Amino acid sequence: MTKWTYSFGGGAAEGDASMNDLLGGKGANLAEMSGLGLPVPPGFTITTEACARYGANTGTRPPGLETQVRDGIAFVERLSGAVFGDPDNPLLVSVRSGSRVSMPGMMDTVLNLGLNDRTAGGLARRTGNPRFAYDSYRRFIQMYADVVMGVDPYLFEEALAHARDEKGVDLDTDLDPDDLLRLTATYRSIVRSQAGEDFPDRPEDQLWGAVGAVFRSWTNRRAVTYRRLHDIPDSWGTAVTVQAMVFGNMGPDCATGVAFTRDPSTGEARLYGEYLVNAQGEDVVAGIRTPVPVTGNGGAGSMDEVMPEVYRELLAMRDRLETHYRDMQDMEFTVQNGRLYMLQTRSGKRTTQAAIRIAVDLANEGMISHEEAILRVDPGALDQLLHPTLDPQAERRVITTGLPASPGAVSGTVVLTADEAERRSHDGEQVILVRQETSPEDIHGMYAAQGILTTRGGMTSHAAVVARGMGRPCVCGAGRIHVDQEAGCFHVDDITVRAGDWITLDGSSGDVMLGRVATAQPRQSDEFATLMDWADTCRRLGVRANAETVEDARTARDFGAEGIGLCRTEHMFFEAERVVAVREMILASTEEQRRAALGRLLPMQRTDFEALFRVMQGLPVTIRLLDPPLHEFLPHTDDDIAELAEATDIPVELVRRRTAELRETNPMLGHRGCRLAISYPEIPEMQARAIFEAAVAVASDSAAAVIPEIMIPLAATRREIETVKAVVDQVAETVFAEAGARIDYLVGTMIELPRAALRASDLAESAAFFSFGTNDLTQTTFGISRDDAGGFLRTYQERGILEQDPFVTLDAEGVGELVDLGARRGRAVRPGLKIGICGEHGGDPASIAFCERADLDYVSCSPYRVPVARLAAARAALENR
Amino acid sequence: MTKWTYSFGGGAAEGDASMNDLLGGKGANLAEMSGLGLPVPPGFTITTEACARYGANTGTRPPGLETQVRDGIAFVERLSGAVFGDPDNPLLVSVRSGSRVSMPGMMDTVLNLGLNDRTAGGLARRTGNPRFAYDSYRRFIQMYADVVMGVDPYLFEEALAHARDEKGVDLDTDLDPDDLLRLTATYRSIVRSQAGEDFPDRPEDQLWGAVGAVFRSWTNRRAVTYRRLHDIPDSWGTAVTVQAMVFGNMGPDCATGVAFTRDPSTGEARLYGEYLVNAQGEDVVAGIRTPVPVTGNGGAGSMDEVMPEVYRELLAMRDRLETHYRDMQDMEFTVQNGRLYMLQTRSGKRTTQAAIRIAVDLANEGMISHEEAILRVDPGALDQLLHPTLDPQAERRVITTGLPASPGAVSGTVVLTADEAERRSHDGEQVILVRQETSPEDIHGMYAAQGILTTRGGMTSHAAVVARGMGRPCVCGAGRIHVDQEAGCFHVDDITVRAGDWITLDGSSGDVMLGRVATAQPRQSDEFATLMDWADTCRRLGVRANAETVEDARTARDFGAEGIGLCRTEHMFFEAERVVAVREMILASTEEQRRAALGRLLPMQRTDFEALFRVMQGLPVTIRLLDPPLHEFLPHTDDDIAELAEATDIPVELVRRRTAELRETNPMLGHRGCRLAISYPEIPEMQARAIFEAAVAVASDSAAAVIPEIMIPLAATRREIETVKAVVDQVAETVFAEAGARIDYLVGTMIELPRAALRASDLAESAAFFSFGTNDLTQTTFGISRDDAGGFLRTYQERGILEQDPFVTLDAEGVGELVDLGARRGRAVRPGLKIGICGEHGGDPASIAFCERADLDYVSCSPYRVPVARLAAARAALENR
Repeated sequence: MTKWTYSFGGGAAEGDASMNDLLGGKGANLAEMSGLGLPVPPGFTITTEACARYGANTGTRPPGLETQVRDGIAFVERLSGAVFGDPDNPLLVSVRSGSRVSMPGMMDTVLNLGLNDRTAGGLARRTGNPRFAYDSYRRFIQMYADVVMGVDPYLFEEALAHARDEKGVDLDTDLDPDDLLRLTATYRSIVRSQAGEDFPDRPEDQLWGAVGAVFRSWTNRRAVTYRRLHDIPDSWGTAVTVQAMVFGNMGPDCATGVAFTRDPSTGEARLYGEYLVNAQGEDVVAGIRTPVPVTGNGGAGSMDEVMPEVYRELLAMRDRLETHYRDMQDMEFTVQNGRLYMLQTRSGKRTTQAAIRIAVDLANEGMISHEEAILRVDPGALDQLLHPTLDPQAERRVITTGLPASPGAVSGTVVLTADEAERRSHDGEQVILVRQETSPEDIHGMYAAQGILTTRGGMTSHAAVVARGMGRPCVCGAGRIHVDQEAGCFHVDDITVRAGDWITLDGSSGDVMLGRVATAQPRQSDEFATLMDWADTCRRLGVRANAETVEDARTARDFGAEGIGLCRTEHMFFEAERVVAVREMILASTEEQRRAALGRLLPMQRTDFEALFRVMQGLPVTIRLLDPPLHEFLPHTDDDIAELAEATDIPVELVRRRTAELRETNPMLGHRGCRLAISYPEIPEMQARAIFEAAVAVASDSAAAVIPEIMIPLAATRREIETVKAVVDQVAETVFAEAGARIDYLVGTMIELPRAALRASDLAESAAFFSFGTNDLTQTTFGISRDDAGGFLRTYQERGILEQDPFVTLDAEGVGELVDLGARRGRAVRPGLKIGICGEHGGDPASIAFCERADLDYVSCSPYRVPVARLAAARAALENR
Repeated sequence: MTKWTYSFGGGAAEGDASMNDLLGGKGANLAEMSGLGLPVPPGFTITTEACARYGANTGTRPPGLETQVRDGIAFVERLSGAVFGDPDNPLLVSVRSGSRVSMPGMMDTVLNLGLNDRTAGGLARRTGNPRFAYDSYRRFIQMYADVVMGVDPYLFEEALAHARDEKGVDLDTDLDPDDLLRLTATYRSIVRSQAGEDFPDRPEDQLWGAVGAVFRSWTNRRAVTYRRLHDIPDSWGTAVTVQAMVFGNMGPDCATGVAFTRDPSTGEARLYGEYLVNAQGEDVVAGIRTPVPVTGNGGAGSMDEVMPEVYRELLAMRDRLETHYRDMQDMEFTVQNGRLYMLQTRSGKRTTQAAIRIAVDLANEGMISHEEAILRVDPGALDQLLHPTLDPQAERRVITTGLPASPGAVSGTVVLTADEAERRSHDGEQVILVRQETSPEDIHGMYAAQGILTTRGGMTSHAAVVARGMGRPCVCGAGRIHVDQEAGCFHVDDITVRAGDWITLDGSSGDVMLGRVATAQPRQSDEFATLMDWADTCRRLGVRANAETVEDARTARDFGAEGIGLCRTEHMFFEAERVVAVREMILASTEEQRRAALGRLLPMQRTDFEALFRVMQGLPVTIRLLDPPLHEFLPHTDDDIAELAEATDIPVELVRRRTAELRETNPMLGHRGCRLAISYPEIPEMQARAIFEAAVAVASDSAAAVIPEIMIPLAATRREIETVKAVVDQVAETVFAEAGARIDYLVGTMIELPRAALRASDLAESAAFFSFGTNDLTQTTFGISRDDAGGFLRTYQERGILEQDPFVTLDAEGVGELVDLGARRGRAVRPGLKIGICGEHGGDPASIAFCERADLDYVSCSPYRVPVARLAAARAALENR
C-alpha cells in the first residue's frame, strides 16, 4: 500500500527535510523541526504523489488515502488532546499547500477548519473567549466558501459592513459575540444561495473539501502562469499539510510573528524579526496593525521586554535552526497562552550584500566551508553591488520600461545625437544619449554619455554590448518611446521629453524615469573581497575581460581580470581624428592609396596598443583583427557624405558610389572578418605591425611583457587562417629584425560560425588558440540577427517557445553542442589547445557553468562583469566536481 | 630495388592500362596497346614515383634509375634494330610527359632525340633523305635548346628567316639539305652564346637533359596554375615516356593523323578522323597544311582511297580498341613507309549529345551494361541539351562575362525596370531585364522577360534562383556593367547600351553579347529518352521539382518530376492585383484589419493551389508557408509609397512608418519564416485554409488526389513547429467538417538552420517530414549571405580558399555534416522519416551524390534541372553500390 501521508509532532516525525519533493517545502521542514524536538503543532502531510493521483475534476482519491487521512487526524487528536468535531473540545486544523519550490500566494489555504455551530460553541466555552470563537468561525466560513465553494468573498465583506452599519460601529472589533454569531448565520445563507448547497457541517466533509480545493489550486490559472514563468514542471504537484491550529489571538499572552536568524538586509548576525501581541498571522499581512520588532533597544513593546521568557526560547530556536540548517532561516512562530510554537522555517531571502556577509560569516564561524560559502551567493546578483543603484527611498516616476541591458542607475539630461552628447559632456554636463538604435558611429557619444537609452534592439544589440563593455547603464528596446529628431524630443504616449530635460535610467530593471532620482554609489565590503579570494582558489576557468581602452583595461584589472580576452580593434578606429584616415583607406581606389591611409593609422594604433600593453603587463592580450564590414565606417546622410568629401578631397560622387557599393543586404553575413583581411592584406599587415612594434617597445623597458594573442575573426576554413597568419608572421619577422628583439605571440582564431566549430580539427592545424565568439555563433546557429530579434524574441519568450534569450544565456543544447564539439575536435588535433569564449555569454553565470562543463580554459566578459564571472566560475567548478 | 621503368613494344609490355597512376595516361595506354599486340613503337616509361624522387633543382636521380634507363634504351635498340648514337643506324627517341590526368600542353616534350652531327649524317644516308634528316636535326636543336637549356626559340626562328632571306626564298621547304646543315651549325653557336655551354652531342647526355626537363616541367608555372585550377595534387608528379621515333614525313607512303572511333560530335558509329600524307604531327598542329578526312565519300585524298591497305588496318584498330576499352577512343597514329604505328589512344572527348548516343549505342551493342551507360554521361552536361544554345557558327561580340546563373541562350531588347519588361512583353516584344540586382518586387518583370542580367549577386542570388526556377536564361553579377537608370542605359567600360537595344545572353557561359546572336533550339533525342528510362530504374533518390506556377509544374512533370518538393507560396503574392491585398495585410494595425486583407487573399491562393493540384494529381506537393520578411512586399521609393497610400487609403505617413519599422539590418536572420506564422497566426491560418479547400475540391472530382505536405520554414525549435502545426491542424479539421470530406496531409519542417539540424531529434517529434533548405543552411553554416558574397567569394575561389562555390555544390564536410547528422537524429526518433532537400543543390550532381550517400529520400530542383537530377541520382546510386 502506498504511503500517502506523513505525520509529525510530539518531538518526532515520519518525514524530514530531505523529503522536500514528496512533502513540499513546508511539510518537509515541519517534519524536520518536529524531528528535532522543536515545538511544532502536530499534523500530517499528504504527499505530492497523492496530488498527482488525485482526480482534479472528479475528486477521485487514490486507494488508501482516505484511511491514512483518517489515521492522520486520529494522530493529531491524540497529540493535541482535542477531537475533530467534538462540541466540547474541538480540534481545529489548517489545510495548506506546499510544493517543492515556494510559489508564494499562488495556491490556496484554509484555516480554522473543523468549526460548525456546535464546535464553535464548544470553542467559546473552552477558551472562555466567545468573541474569538465566533470571529474564527465567521472567518472560516468566508475562507472556505471562497476557496472550496467558489463564493465571491465580497458578498461576506458586504454582510459584515452591513452588520457594522446596523450596529452603528466602525470597527469589526466593536461587534460582540452575538453579532458575530448572527453573522455566521447570514454567511451560511449566502453560501446556500450562491453555491446552491449548504455549508458543510461535518468536519470530515470540510476536510475533504479543503484538501480537494488545495489539490485543484495547483492547476488554477495564476499557479499555471507562475510555473510557466519559473519553468516549474506541471507534473510536480503540491503536497497538503493538515495541522492543528494554534492561536496567537487568544489574549495578551498570545502573539504571532516572523523572524530572521540574521539581518536579511545587511547580513548582520543578530535575530531580526517582527511580531504582534494577541494577533493572527492574517492581521500582520492585512496591515491592520503595525508589527513591533522582536528585539528592542529599549523600544516599547518589543518581545524581549514583553515576553522575555518566550524571547529567550526564540533565541534558542534561532541557534538551534541555524546550527541545524547551516544557513540563515526565516521562521514563522505563534505564541499561544505563553507557549511558543514554530509554524515554519525556511532558508531566508536576503539582499546580495547580506548573502555575501552571511556566507562569509558562516564560513568564518566554522559552520560551512569556503566552498559552501561560494555556493550560497548568486553570482548574477553581484552585478547590483558593482553599479550605482536607485536610492530605495527616493520617489520615482517610471514612464516606460525597456530591457535591462547594462546595469546601474544614472541620471542625466537628454541628448539625441552622439555629437551633442560629446559636446555637452565636454561642457561638464551629465547626459543620457537617447537613440532609436546605435551604430559604431555613435561610439564617441556613448562614451561621453552617462547612460544610453534606445527604442529598438535587444539585450545584445550594439547599444547593449557596447554599453556593458564601457560600464555605462543602458536601457534598450524601449519600444513605446518615439524619438522625434527634428522636434528635438521623444514621446511616450502623451508624455513629451525634450532634449535637455533630466531623466533617470535604471539599467538593472529597465525602468526609465522622469527627472533626477537619487542614486546610491556601490561599495564593496570586506566580505566581498574575502569571498572573491575564496572563489579564485576554487575556480578552474580563467577570467579575462573584453576591453580596448586603457580605462576599461584598468577597470578590468582592478576587478581581477587575468588578461584581455577580446580587444576589438575597430573600436579604436572611431575617434574623430582617425575615422578620416579609416575612411580614406576604405575609399582608396588603389592599393597604394590604401597603404598611404593605413600608414597614417599605424602610429595611432601602435600608441593605443602600447598603452594597453602597459596596463596589462605580464598578462595575455587577445587582439581581434578588424572585424566589421567596411561600410560601417562610412557616412550615410548626404551631409555627412559632403563633409567627408570635403575633408578627404575625394569627389562627392565617388564617396557616394563607394558607399553604395559597400552597402550589404545582410552585413552580418557579408564582407567582414577575415574576409576583409584576405581581400585587403594591407589591413592586417598594418595592424600586425602596430601590435608587434608596441609589444617590442613595452618589452624593452618593462620586466613583464604582454603576450599578444592575435585573433582572426569569422574564419570558416583552415585556408583563411593560413592566409592571414602568413601575413601576420611575416610582419612579425620584419618587425623583430628591425628591432633586433623578439617577443612571444600566438595567432589563433575566433570560432563564431557553425562551420568553424564543425571543422575545428582543420582549423586547429593552423590556429594556436580558439576563442568562441558566441554572439555570432548564436546568430548563425539560430539564424537570428541580434539587431532584428526585437520583433519576435520577446514574443518567443513570453509564449515559452524559448525559455531564455539565447543571446543572454548560451543555448546549451544547440549552440552549446557546437562549442563542445569544436573544443573536442580542436584538442584532438592540438592537445592542450587554449580555448576561451569572448561573447556576451562570458559574463553570464549559466553560460559560465556551461563553459566549465565543456572544459574551456577561460571566459572573457565586460570589465564590470569580471567579479560575476570569477564567482560563477568558482561555483561552476564546485558544482562540476 | 625499386622498379623505375616499364618497357613496352613488340607485342608485349611490362605495364598495362591499370597502372595509370604510376605510368601516366600516355605510358599506361601505350603499354596496354603494346600488350594487345598493336603496332606500337618500342619504348619505356619512367614512373611518376621517379619524378617524385627526382631532385628538381639538383638533378639528383634516385638510385637504380640510371641503370634501368640504360636497360630501357638497350631494349628499344633491340626491338628497333637501331642503336643510340650509332652514326650508321642511329636510334632516335621522343621524350614525353604523361601524368595521371591529361594536362594538355602544360608540360614539355622533346622529339628526335639522339641526333648530332654524326648521327644526322647517318640518318641522311640510311633514309636516303638528307633533307628530312637535317630538317629533323634542326628542329631537334631548337626544341631541345628551348625545353632543356632555356634558349629563346625566337632566336632560332630569326636565324631560319635569315637563311631564307640569304637564299632569297619564302618557304622553309625551299632550303636544301646543305642550307639546313649550315643552319644547324648556326643553331649550335646560338646555343653556345645563349646558354654558355655547348649543345650536348652525346645522346645519353641529351636523354638525361630531356628527362630532367620533363620532370622539372611538372613544376613550371603554367602546370602549377593548371593543377590548382583543376584541383590536382602537386604530389602526383609526371611520368616520362621514352619511345623510338617513327616518322610520318619520310615520303608519300608516310602519314600522320588522329581518329575517333565514333563521331565525337553526334556520336554516330563511324570512324571519324583526319590525316596528312608525308607530314609530322607538328604540321597538323601548326596549321601549315589542312588535314584531310580519313574516310572520304569519294572525296579527294582521303585515306581509304590513298592508302586503302593502311586504312583497313586502321579500321581493324578501331574495332580492336573499342572492343578492348569498351568506349569511344581518340587515337593518334603515324604511317611510316606504309606501316601503321599507334602512338596514343585514350577515351575521346565528345559533346553531350554524342556522349548520350555513344553510351546508349554501346549498351545496345552489348558492349556495356545499362548501368555503365549511365555512368558514361555527365549529368551536369545535360543542361545544355535542355536549353537553347548559341549557334556555334554565329558571330558574337562579347562585351562582358558574368556568372552563368541560369543556362540557355537568348536575345532581346534591353529594359531596365520590371514594369517596362511587362509592358513591352505584352506588346509582343522580346525583352531582357537588366538590373543591378532583383528583388521579389521584380518577379512579374522577370517572368515577362526572356532573360535576366544583373550586375550584383552570385549564383544563388534572388535573380539566379528565380530565373532557374522559371527556366529563364540569366547572367548574374556582371560587375563591369554600370546601370544608369536615369539615363536609361548601361555602360561596360566605354560601350553604352541603351534601353531598346538588342543584346544576347548566354546563361551557360555568362557571356553578354551585343546584338542578336542566332540560337539553336534544344531537341531531345530518342537516346536521351532511353538513357533517362534506364536512369529511373537505377536510382533510389526521388526527384521532385521546385515550382509554384501551373506552367512550371507542367514543365516539371513533363521532365519526369515525381512531385513538387518546394512551392514557395510568397511567389503567388506578387501579382499586381494581389500585392495590394498583401500590403494591406502587412500595414494592418489590428488583427481584424489583417484578417480582412487575408480574406481577400484566400480565394486567390485557393485558386492557385487548385490549379497546381490538378496538374500534380496523384503526386505529393510540398507547400512552404510564407517565408520572407514582410518588408520585402512593401514599397521602397517615395513614389511607390504614395501610390500604395492612394490605393489602400492608408495615410502616407503610416505607410512610411510601418515600412521603416519593418526594415531590418539583416533580413535573412530576421522576422521571417515560422517567426511570422507565430507572430501572426492568421497568416498560416489563411494559407492552410486555401490549401485544404483546394485539396478537398480537387479530391472530390478526380481519381488521384494530391497529398499536401505543408512545410514550416526556418524552425529552430520543436515548440515553433508545434505552435504552427496546431494552427494548421485546427484549420484542417474545420475545413474537413465544412466539406464533409477528409484528405491525407502531412505537416513537416524545413531544416535550414544549424540548430534545427543539431536538434533534429526534437524536431522530428513534431514534424512528419524534413526538407533540408540547403541554401539557407549554407548561409548560416558559413555565415555568408548569398546576396553579399559577390565581393569575396570569387576571390576565395580564385585563391583556392574555397574549392567550390558552396551555394552551387553542397559543402559536404561542413554543411554536409549537419545534413547527415540531422537526417540520422531525425530518423532515430521517427524511423522512416521522409527527408528531402529543396535548396539549389537539389539540381547539382555532386550535391545529389552527397544526398545519396546521406540516404535522403528525394531531391527537389528547378523544373529544368529534373533530367539532370534523375541522371545524377542514378549515377550516385550506382557509385554508392
